[in-house]
Amino acid sequence: MSLSPDCIPCILKQALYAARIAKINDEKIQIEILKYVIKELNNIDNIETAPELSNKIQDIVKVFSGINDPYAEEKERNLKRASKFVPYLKTYINNSYDKLEQAVRVAILGNIIDLGANPDFKLEDEINRINSNNIVLDDYPLFKEKVEKAKYILYIGDNAEEAIFDKLLIEQLQCKNIIFVVRDSYILNDVTIDFAKKIGLNKIAKVISSGSKVAGTNLKETNKTFNKYFFNAPVIIAKGQGNFETLMNCDREIFYMFKVKCEVIAKRTGYKVGTSVLLKNPK
Amino acid sequence: MSLSPDCIPCILKQALYAARIAKINDEKIQIEILKYVIKELNNIDNIETAPELSNKIQDIVKVFSGINDPYAEEKERNLKRASKFVPYLKTYINNSYDKLEQAVRVAILGNIIDLGANPDFKLEDEINRINSNNIVLDDYPLFKEKVEKAKYILYIGDNAEEAIFDKLLIEQLQCKNIIFVVRDSYILNDVTIDFAKKIGLNKIAKVISSGSKVAGTNLKETNKTFNKYFFNAPVIIAKGQGNFETLMNCDREIFYMFKVKCEVIAKRTGYKVGTSVLLKNPK
Repeated sequence: MSLSPDCIPCILKQALYAARIAKINDEKIQIEILKYVIKELNNIDNIETAPELSNKIQDIVKVFSGINDPYAEEKERNLKRASKFVPYLKTYINNSYDKLEQAVRVAILGNIIDLGANPDFKLEDEINRINSNNIVLDDYPLFKEKVEKAKYILYIGDNAEEAIFDKLLIEQLQCKNIIFVVRDSYILNDVTIDFAKKIGLNKIAKVISSGSKVAGTNLKETNKTFNKYFFNAPVIIAKGQGNFETLMNCDREIFYMFKVKCEVIAKRTGYKVGTSVLLKNPK
Repeated sequence: MSLSPDCIPCILKQALYAARIAKINDEKIQIEILKYVIKELNNIDNIETAPELSNKIQDIVKVFSGINDPYAEEKERNLKRASKFVPYLKTYINNSYDKLEQAVRVAILGNIIDLGANPDFKLEDEINRINSNNIVLDDYPLFKEKVEKAKYILYIGDNAEEAIFDKLLIEQLQCKNIIFVVRDSYILNDVTIDFAKKIGLNKIAKVISSGSKVAGTNLKETNKTFNKYFFNAPVIIAKGQGNFETLMNCDREIFYMFKVKCEVIAKRTGYKVGTSVLLKNPK
């Protein structure tokens, strides 16, 4: 996906948010960070996607703060907050007529925990609205059919805390071979190897890094292991806007699951901000 | 007021909004505009206030669009929308125990029509909330006392459409000598000489330009006539965040009237976003 003009002010705002997350509260230093960001923006012609630009900018904050994982504390806090709802959501899924469909709803709901595009998320409100939610599941019947036959499923994660909801979907996929993909390094609050292990994802799936360092999946960066699975997988699930932005133009059939969080993605998908979608692409 | 880091992404966003207002809908041209904006941002060390930066950026949009007043249509539309409420607001003021106080409320309410900091304003909601409004009038008793004695009052306007509400306050000021100050050229939807005349402000006040071209009052730009009044006025009223940002560090006593529309001004004033204030500064 090419970089939209609206991504530029948004990513600048994210740089400031990241600086504050990394406890850089001095406005003079924040301005210094923005100056480096502006230098980077002088080269926007060479940047293809919003996650690529975001990555360069998050790196500037890492250098200034000297912290490799500025979002660590925030992830910990959100994990505790989200974990409280897991027993309820498990009961909700298990008491449903179509458990897989409800687990898809839960997995998409988890995508609200996004400290990049949506730092002021209201997880509790989202959970309360799980059934009345504005959710588009048009591609669900095909998804279900493909999942039932799949020898293995490649599941590309997004935000770290969201992965505890992904676990609930993985349990319903009824497929023994799930490859769960994480980012190669810390970027925003995205899921990485250490976090996936911490929440026990490695017990129900094979966890691999994509090799990509952006908040998405940059196919120019991905490693051999990932590529082998990616170009052969009978079913690919990709969570979050970042994966959609970076993979939407590739020719693989992918079932995206995300919450539309900004006008740019609303325009590209045709769904309003706030809509949750299971979206097969290409159509 | 020094430039806050948060102003930078906000002003970039304003540049895009202005481009769209000027009917530049091609994303490639929008990106070109942003590149010029980014060039300007390389010099942020030399920029003192958000209105100064905003002015440079609005000028870029004017050059690209070839339109000197990109907000003309929008101002016309908002004027019609706001004019409908004038008879109701007049009745509201005239039936009040303290007409001046109610007229102050009306004038502050009008400050919501701000296409810079607040393009998604809801005028109708604001009018419905006029009495229940979150409004701080602590400095009103002193304001009233000073106004009653004043030989003349300098009234620095802000947004063009807002000025029809300013007229209602001017009618209640009971002072024959009101100098109403407008911007020297088109900037955002701010009030200028032509607009002030169009709505008949010249019939109840002497209308002058400050000489300043920014969305505020930059004392490095102001003309002799303005300066003569400004440095001698027994009472100065200044509407809007832009006037507050550019004048807050000068040593004149000013009664600011505005709606707090962003976190930066919230932090500087100590009032939450959404609060309406009549604020004397310096205290």
